Amino acid sequence: MATVSLITDDDASADVLDVFNEIRAVRGTNYVNNFWRALAHDPALLRATWDRLKTVMAPGALNPMVKEMLYVAVSTVNGCEYCVHSHTAAAKAKGMTDEMYGELLAVIGMASQTNALATGLQVPVDEIFEV
Amino acid sequence: MATVSLITDDDASADVLDVFNEIRAVRGTNYVNNFWRALAHDPALLRATWDRLKTVMAPGALNPMVKEMLYVAVSTVNGCEYCVHSHTAAAKAKGMTDEMYGELLAVIGMASQTNALATGLQVPVDEIFEV
Amino acid sequence: MATVSLITDDDASADVLDVFNEIRAVRGTNYVNNFWRALAHDPALLRATWDRLKTVMAPGALNPMVKEMLYVAVSTVNGCEYCVHSHTAAAKAKGMTDEMYGELLAVIGMASQTNALATGLQVPVDEIFEV
Amino acid sequence: MATVSLITDDDASADVLDVFNEIRAVRGTNYVNNFWRALAHDPALLRATWDRLKTVMAPGALNPMVKEMLYVAVSTVNGCEYCVHSHTAAAKAKGMTDEMYGELLAVIGMASQTNALATGLQVPVDEIFEV
Amino acid sequence: MATVSLITDDDASADVLDVFNEIRAVRGTNYVNNFWRALAHDPALLRATWDRLKTVMAPGALNPMVKEMLYVAVSTVNGCEYCVHSHTAAAKAKGMTDEMYGELLAVIGMASQTNALATGLQVPVDEIFEV
Amino acid sequence: MATVSLITDDDASADVLDVFNEIRAVRGTNYVNNFWRALAHDPALLRATWDRLKTVMAPGALNPMVKEMLYVAVSTVNGCEYCVHSHTAAAKAKGMTDEMYGELLAVIGMASQTNALATGLQVPVDEIFEV
Repeated sequence: MATVSLITDDDASADVLDVFNEIRAVRGTNYVNNFWRALAHDPALLRATWDRLKTVMAPGALNPMVKEMLYVAVSTVNGCEYCVHSHTAAAKAKGMTDEMYGELLAVIGMASQTNALATGLQVPVDEIFEV
Repeated sequence: MATVSLITDDDASADVLDVFNEIRAVRGTNYVNNFWRALAHDPALLRATWDRLKTVMAPGALNPMVKEMLYVAVSTVNGCEYCVHSHTAAAKAKGMTDEMYGELLAVIGMASQTNALATGLQVPVDEIFEV
Repeated sequence: MATVSLITDDDASADVLDVFNEIRAVRGTNYVNNFWRALAHDPALLRATWDRLKTVMAPGALNPMVKEMLYVAVSTVNGCEYCVHSHTAAAKAKGMTDEMYGELLAVIGMASQTNALATGLQVPVDEIFEV
Repeated sequence: MATVSLITDDDASADVLDVFNEIRAVRGTNYVNNFWRALAHDPALLRATWDRLKTVMAPGALNPMVKEMLYVAVSTVNGCEYCVHSHTAAAKAKGMTDEMYGELLAVIGMASQTNALATGLQVPVDEIFEV
Repeated sequence: MATVSLITDDDASADVLDVFNEIRAVRGTNYVNNFWRALAHDPALLRATWDRLKTVMAPGALNPMVKEMLYVAVSTVNGCEYCVHSHTAAAKAKGMTDEMYGELLAVIGMASQTNALATGLQVPVDEIFEV
Repeated sequence: MATVSLITDDDASADVLDVFNEIRAVRGTNYVNNFWRALAHDPALLRATWDRLKTVMAPGALNPMVKEMLYVAVSTVNGCEYCVHSHTAAAKAKGMTDEMYGELLAVIGMASQTNALATGLQVPVDEIFEV
């Protein structure tokens, strides 16, 4: 259960409904997922979060599938159950194959392991890595 | 300072030197960075870590530059100063442009923000995200 | 499910029941929440944790509502589902309005974002911030 | 050292200088801290981050000092050295007394401890905490 | 629900079944837990993870029970619900008494608290701790 | 630099000096490390933290060396540079050999890796792990 109720379309103010409808239009689906329905309790936070997400996740120098895989990596380390599920689904929808997914998990696991070793050993940064 | 001294080539056992030389060969440089020189205090751990890293980071369904960017994302969230430096340098060496780097940072920041919001709100996972 | 069973009043030793009854008296409710009932498997840990919590969360230079909001912030970043729920409920009970809650979430999200950016960029601390 | 050089006013593009000058105006100081000078490598990320920060940290239902203390709490748990320093300085500048600072640290420490205990015990959320 | 289905023995390829059977032999039980059944979607990742785990957790200078307690400590701080459950069960199976478990939790809680205090205060490392 | 100055014996109040002297007596050394000198800005927090630490780290069902290794594990995952250094030194002083240290690091690395994999895959907890 969320700490707040989920706002349905019927409960939504005009400002909230505007964001819900933009989400529908950008994603080409009628479904608005729970994250936005919870966030809708604060319409200004909903609007700011959606506007920024839309910009950040748009195609750019990195393609949307790679961005979703990065999102999965961050969400995994932050231990966000909701975000792991939603962005793994999004990455798959944008073309992530089973083989890519296996490699994504392998890199996340490897990095988490060497992060722990480098921190445990307090390894000093090599000068050649400095700008 | 590390919690252990850094093993130089002169101090290295034959087993350790074998790993150092493989690192040199695979990376095409004579430089062996501090992480491996600290880890060399435990030759078995050094060998296992290097063997696995070499496999995980090799070209596959994901290209090495994307893998390095994923590594930067994980290292940032884990707060590993050493790994942020070493893998940002590696990503740049493998072709990450300034524009890609800006987008990488933007995704890491965005994901960290919505991870916190989803966890703070304890948003329940939508059924459509379940397998 | 917890890794231990939850200790009911009927199962509780005299030492454990003393703590349960203090919790009831301080909070003005007959309800003792699951955290204490799980911790009760180790009466000394239960006593030490409750004694310290009671002191730390008492009114002081900061009021109890602000302390609960700080608790929510820490619990969110640590990813503690139980604590997010219990301390969000406590903050509301101590006067946190919907508007305050929205601002609390916005600050947690913003801080998590710039924390990630500062760590990803490894920004050096300005001298003016040093004591 | 940062992973990028710090942009001075002389190096700054017009867009970047606009943000630097807004920071100066809002904060009533000529000093622009390193975080913004590092972020300036990506002018769009700089602009978006500053615009959002300015809004989130403005006086609202919570006063700016409380917001800075929340920022310190989040930054501490995320292990962001830079942010701990900059926001502790900001909280002091906005009125945090030594006594408040001691209580802030005590709450952060207490919450981190019980977060660990609740997660280690996997305590189930009480129904009364559910919305 | 996992992000992938759990591979049963009937669905398993020969490579996967080999790992499952090694797990059974090493642990002296017919039961293969969900972690391995999820990981089995990537047979190479399954094989590499199992081979390494088997080596790391074998008796050595530290006994297996102590290793499991260390695993619980790491899993708790990383907020891994699955791993907290599986390794707490493993530690108990290898001899962890109720008293040891209470002390394990007390140390995890204490360390999390002083970690937060040392990071919040940004305490500089004493020279006597340096190698 | 810490966010506060370090309290010397000359600057210390009688209450603070009492704690410093207890630390000296319990540890059998005249040296009081920086953590306590920073914490001394809040005498009540100093006293409460020391009293609890002294109890938690005393010999019990687990020996002090094992407790220090658990402390290193927690501190590593929490990314606390100060605590990694101080508790690695303490573990060595209490008998941790090089071989034990290598195994400690290997377990921390392994656990961090499988924590990430289990969270990334969102593996459901097996019923047999439930109490």
